[in-house]
Amino acid sequence: MKITKYATIAASSFVLLLLLTTMAMAGDPNGSATYTDDVAGLKIATNFAWTLVAAFLVFFMQAGFALLGAGALRVKNTVNYFTKSYMDFSIGALAYWAVGFALMFGGSKLFAGLEEGNSIIGWSGWFLTGDAYDVSTMMFWMFQVVFAATAATIVAGACAERLKLQTYLIYSGIVTAIIYSIYGHWVWGGGWLSTLPYGVGARDFAGSGVVHAIGGLVSLAAIMLLGPRIGKFNKDGTPNAIPGHDVGYIVLGTFVLFFGWFGFNPGSTLAATDLRISVIAVNTFLAGSAGAVLVCYWTFLKTKKVDIALTCNGALAGLVGVTAPCAYIPTWAAVVIGLVSGLIVMYGIRFNEWVLKVDDPVGAVAVHGYNGLWGLLAVGIFADGTYGGVSGLIVGNTGQMMAQIIDAATVAVWAFGTGYILFALLKHTVGLRASREEELAGMDISEHGYSAYPEFITQETGEGPAVKSSESVRT
Amino acid sequence: MKITKYATIAASSFVLLLLLTTMAMAGDPNGSATYTDDVAGLKIATNFAWTLVAAFLVFFMQAGFALLGAGALRVKNTVNYFTKSYMDFSIGALAYWAVGFALMFGGSKLFAGLEEGNSIIGWSGWFLTGDAYDVSTMMFWMFQVVFAATAATIVAGACAERLKLQTYLIYSGIVTAIIYSIYGHWVWGGGWLSTLPYGVGARDFAGSGVVHAIGGLVSLAAIMLLGPRIGKFNKDGTPNAIPGHDVGYIVLGTFVLFFGWFGFNPGSTLAATDLRISVIAVNTFLAGSAGAVLVCYWTFLKTKKVDIALTCNGALAGLVGVTAPCAYIPTWAAVVIGLVSGLIVMYGIRFNEWVLKVDDPVGAVAVHGYNGLWGLLAVGIFADGTYGGVSGLIVGNTGQMMAQIIDAATVAVWAFGTGYILFALLKHTVGLRASREEELAGMDISEHGYSAYPEFITQETGEGPAVKSSESVRT
Amino acid sequence: MKITKYATIAASSFVLLLLLTTMAMAGDPNGSATYTDDVAGLKIATNFAWTLVAAFLVFFMQAGFALLGAGALRVKNTVNYFTKSYMDFSIGALAYWAVGFALMFGGSKLFAGLEEGNSIIGWSGWFLTGDAYDVSTMMFWMFQVVFAATAATIVAGACAERLKLQTYLIYSGIVTAIIYSIYGHWVWGGGWLSTLPYGVGARDFAGSGVVHAIGGLVSLAAIMLLGPRIGKFNKDGTPNAIPGHDVGYIVLGTFVLFFGWFGFNPGSTLAATDLRISVIAVNTFLAGSAGAVLVCYWTFLKTKKVDIALTCNGALAGLVGVTAPCAYIPTWAAVVIGLVSGLIVMYGIRFNEWVLKVDDPVGAVAVHGYNGLWGLLAVGIFADGTYGGVSGLIVGNTGQMMAQIIDAATVAVWAFGTGYILFALLKHTVGLRASREEELAGMDISEHGYSAYPEFITQETGEGPAVKSSESVRT
Repeated sequence: MKITKYATIAASSFVLLLLLTTMAMAGDPNGSATYTDDVAGLKIATNFAWTLVAAFLVFFMQAGFALLGAGALRVKNTVNYFTKSYMDFSIGALAYWAVGFALMFGGSKLFAGLEEGNSIIGWSGWFLTGDAYDVSTMMFWMFQVVFAATAATIVAGACAERLKLQTYLIYSGIVTAIIYSIYGHWVWGGGWLSTLPYGVGARDFAGSGVVHAIGGLVSLAAIMLLGPRIGKFNKDGTPNAIPGHDVGYIVLGTFVLFFGWFGFNPGSTLAATDLRISVIAVNTFLAGSAGAVLVCYWTFLKTKKVDIALTCNGALAGLVGVTAPCAYIPTWAAVVIGLVSGLIVMYGIRFNEWVLKVDDPVGAVAVHGYNGLWGLLAVGIFADGTYGGVSGLIVGNTGQMMAQIIDAATVAVWAFGTGYILFALLKHTVGLRASREEELAGMDISEHGYSAYPEFITQETGEGPAVKSSESVRT
Repeated sequence: MKITKYATIAASSFVLLLLLTTMAMAGDPNGSATYTDDVAGLKIATNFAWTLVAAFLVFFMQAGFALLGAGALRVKNTVNYFTKSYMDFSIGALAYWAVGFALMFGGSKLFAGLEEGNSIIGWSGWFLTGDAYDVSTMMFWMFQVVFAATAATIVAGACAERLKLQTYLIYSGIVTAIIYSIYGHWVWGGGWLSTLPYGVGARDFAGSGVVHAIGGLVSLAAIMLLGPRIGKFNKDGTPNAIPGHDVGYIVLGTFVLFFGWFGFNPGSTLAATDLRISVIAVNTFLAGSAGAVLVCYWTFLKTKKVDIALTCNGALAGLVGVTAPCAYIPTWAAVVIGLVSGLIVMYGIRFNEWVLKVDDPVGAVAVHGYNGLWGLLAVGIFADGTYGGVSGLIVGNTGQMMAQIIDAATVAVWAFGTGYILFALLKHTVGLRASREEELAGMDISEHGYSAYPEFITQETGEGPAVKSSESVRT
Repeated sequence: MKITKYATIAASSFVLLLLLTTMAMAGDPNGSATYTDDVAGLKIATNFAWTLVAAFLVFFMQAGFALLGAGALRVKNTVNYFTKSYMDFSIGALAYWAVGFALMFGGSKLFAGLEEGNSIIGWSGWFLTGDAYDVSTMMFWMFQVVFAATAATIVAGACAERLKLQTYLIYSGIVTAIIYSIYGHWVWGGGWLSTLPYGVGARDFAGSGVVHAIGGLVSLAAIMLLGPRIGKFNKDGTPNAIPGHDVGYIVLGTFVLFFGWFGFNPGSTLAATDLRISVIAVNTFLAGSAGAVLVCYWTFLKTKKVDIALTCNGALAGLVGVTAPCAYIPTWAAVVIGLVSGLIVMYGIRFNEWVLKVDDPVGAVAVHGYNGLWGLLAVGIFADGTYGGVSGLIVGNTGQMMAQIIDAATVAVWAFGTGYILFALLKHTVGLRASREEELAGMDISEHGYSAYPEFITQETGEGPAVKSSESVRT
């Protein structure tokens, strides 16, 4: 049997080798045709550097998601969550390289090797071979793949502590390769949403919709099918707070995410020569700050305590909310958007727990899903016409708002719909949930065989939590 | 009552909206007048990219401060410290946007919208509206706001484990908006210290004084008024070491701060076309390394043990010390400065505990305050005349030293004085200290309602510490 | 005695001052002769910015190594490991400034002040004084020193939990100043390996050999002389798994390392105007992802569990493997290299434990040593001729492979040989191992006097581990 395995690997490697070598040479793989020692060449180089550094910052957000989620969960599922959080981007990178990028940007003609595609779907750039073996296309891929990875990892937190690891890994490949990429094509790949006959067409600068609403609303579908963790809801339907095991990780994760967001938003110009990058950075900072401030004081005024975990979600909500409009708005609008985002995340979590009665351990649906939609609408409201020709309600333009509403409705239906179908399929094939025994014991033992902190002595806080976090906004 | 609240928010939002929209259009909000497709334009874009990336690195230092402080404190105050550490920059961002930046750079005429002000105080650029809605002004604001946030957060550590959260949050807004910004105006905003008739005027390249001495000496005033933690001093006045709860966090925080310092110092050129950035980076690295090496071996030679927590403070001390002179000195001077910084932090901590009898849980006063002053003086000693026309004692120039002494004296008086007044006012209004019961139980429960690590079983190490950290240099 | 100490310091400082001041002025210390306001000047500035930012990212890898190692070790040695991990770069920076850089790049004539040296060794650029006080030389030093620090720190993990701290600190200075730098001269400093008469001479783009094989194979020599930890091997010679104390730190450390690798590999162009940087970044991402995916599923298929700690080593193995070839290969080759790296790390660890019977707590020998060699060979296999004139077997060229084999053999002999000599010397002078009592109690108490987590209650998991990590691939 071992021999079979090695043989398979060797053979497939060989075939791949032959196949791809012959396809490999094309585009401008070393930049000799793209770079020239003059202003035009330097401009390209400067923008390469900017975009790549931004991509690296966005990559680092993976660490932020890992920390944030792990901190909000219990000790017994820590290894499991870190594994999901680590593996989703690894699998996602390969899936996006093979398939996703071609679906998303094929036909966009943005860079070499992306010629084939229509307004619904793209079909060129597979495996970055052929014409796509080009320095510019590669630069663009590098920036895009980290966005795809961000969308995928959002779901890990929402489904944590009960979704089977292997099911999650299958999901993460599919969402990156297909669900994310097809919708992304409509908005960023030259697809139909970007050319809507309202305003300048739908605009989502850095992905409130493409990244966050996709991740957040696929999460919503997933947790509906998955059901709540044991002990989350009482018999009368009221929710319990299940505290996480490390508040420091939550705060640290938020810092890392905020740091990475400075790549996410300003980097989305793909150009440092687009000097609007400074306004984008400032708006990002202000919206994230405003979201935190609102949640911090709102809960303090009601409870005389500060819930820092929820406050961190406020910061992230502000960042998600400003992600689509960050390039189009003045700074005061960023503050307003952040404040509203703070309200949305607090009441969104409450709505999910008390009305929808779904269990989202990290608040991903409210942070990324609801605020992702808010961000799309905020473009239609606050765009002041100084950038990209995008004008919203505040400067008396209603057309853009129409485009944004259509975009928001589309992403809501697409993400929730395809997410539901995907998780329903997974439920009836590989299965979604760990067994009751596994869940109670924690998934670290059943799926990994070891726990995260084997030397530390811990107590169970699962079913009857002595300490209720974030009770303030939930009751 | 709820209705009132919503109404207030809606109304104020609306007024703000009207007010600011009308003011919004001015400066060069999208860069079309600033950027041109030629050498001049590219130079601007390159320098935007450099400055913004540096700003992002400096932002990330917030995570370093959070880790460093949390690690040096006890479990029972972890949530509280992380909250202070997170919220100060959020509040600070809004305060600096509204007020601080205008006080600090109004009248500097450095960028659009900063025309009004004199050598004592500035008064233009409020809310980044009007002419300040400009890509260059925004770029500059982004870099400056993260420095303001750094100064503010230094105090959190010094006052930790007993200062009330709400008092801290009020303080952090005021120091960012006013205390930091006014002194900053004198040095960086074209104010009177920068134009002293000695040498080329006072020079503080990246803020040994503006950021670190302000933070460190406000801290000193604060902890004098606040008093020591219960158990810090014995009846005979001798201090006890109170060990922190996570040495890994201390080291990790130091790594993050060091990393961010590469934005802090080299970024302060605001220009990659100023190739001195490489010398600055090297000096930063060497001074930080020398500070750590000195403390590591000094304590080892005396005690046969290595105190890594104190060694990390040595590294930070070296970084603080080189922050003002980093651009003006040769590499060997950076090493000497770092070694001296290491001595200053060790004996500074000892002085604080044994002579002043104040309680600074993280050593902030010695690291940032005393070494901030040392950094200012080091400019006057080691500047070798190769950059910015700044020449110190080693090349036979005494005038610069005079300017630096005046600057150091000024910041000492200003920071300690205004800090004392501010905390005295807070003491007699909202109050400074948590109650004795709250302090003994830890501030996580009283101010947040939950603890950082609810599942881990811990023991109290507060009043009678079994393990004495850093005993070496204190006794 | 105290007076003597102070006097010594003062005197030596003074001598140093005199000595170096006189040597200080030369090269272009402020860039006025290097930068010009035209395309040529801007190109230099852009490339300075790129290289420095990359250097900062590589610096941050130190935090990754610290986390990764600490997580894989037991609580009782956490302070000790963090200390080694922190101090090695501090000492290394000073050693590389004084000596290493001159040995490595003297004679390369790459930048000012590096004129003297031959193909075996360099001898100019000491202390960055004289002509080396130059913005370009400094830029280059900043990038190189963080690579030197990376090589040194690899050994800390392999020797953890039993190597004496002071011995480690001596080692780290020597390896950085001499062992690393001399071999580095041969490959990157214009030495004999880079000019071998096969292919274009040996090529190691970002240091699979120079950094990783050096670190990994010095580690192998060290652990052979050092012996295994108490309890690692049973009487019949079979190994036990000794689980680390924090799986989250392992994952987080891997994220940080991966993030830093985006400086390590793409930064090694020293130029953003070399647009190949995008291909390098993509190859880096894909190889790291492929390594993780292979290990994740390989172990899952065999054991039905996922070993995330081992999977992280798979990611790092892929990154090490692609470090030499990253600039020369198409993307599919990066995937193949990463997959092979995953196999090498799994079976390399097994080989070390079952055949060599050495104890490497973090797998450093397999990750960095064996995969470093693999990376060198991969250049000879997969280079496709699109960059730097490097063509490997896949395009029908055998000459390059010959150069790579010679390089790999050389580094294996050099690193293992000099490492063996160095540690043998240390063994017979200062001694290598902590005493049995110190090792059993943990080195935190004996060498530092305090533990990392004094408030948390822990249990000993040392000799008879209840949970066996990574058992899957070892048995």
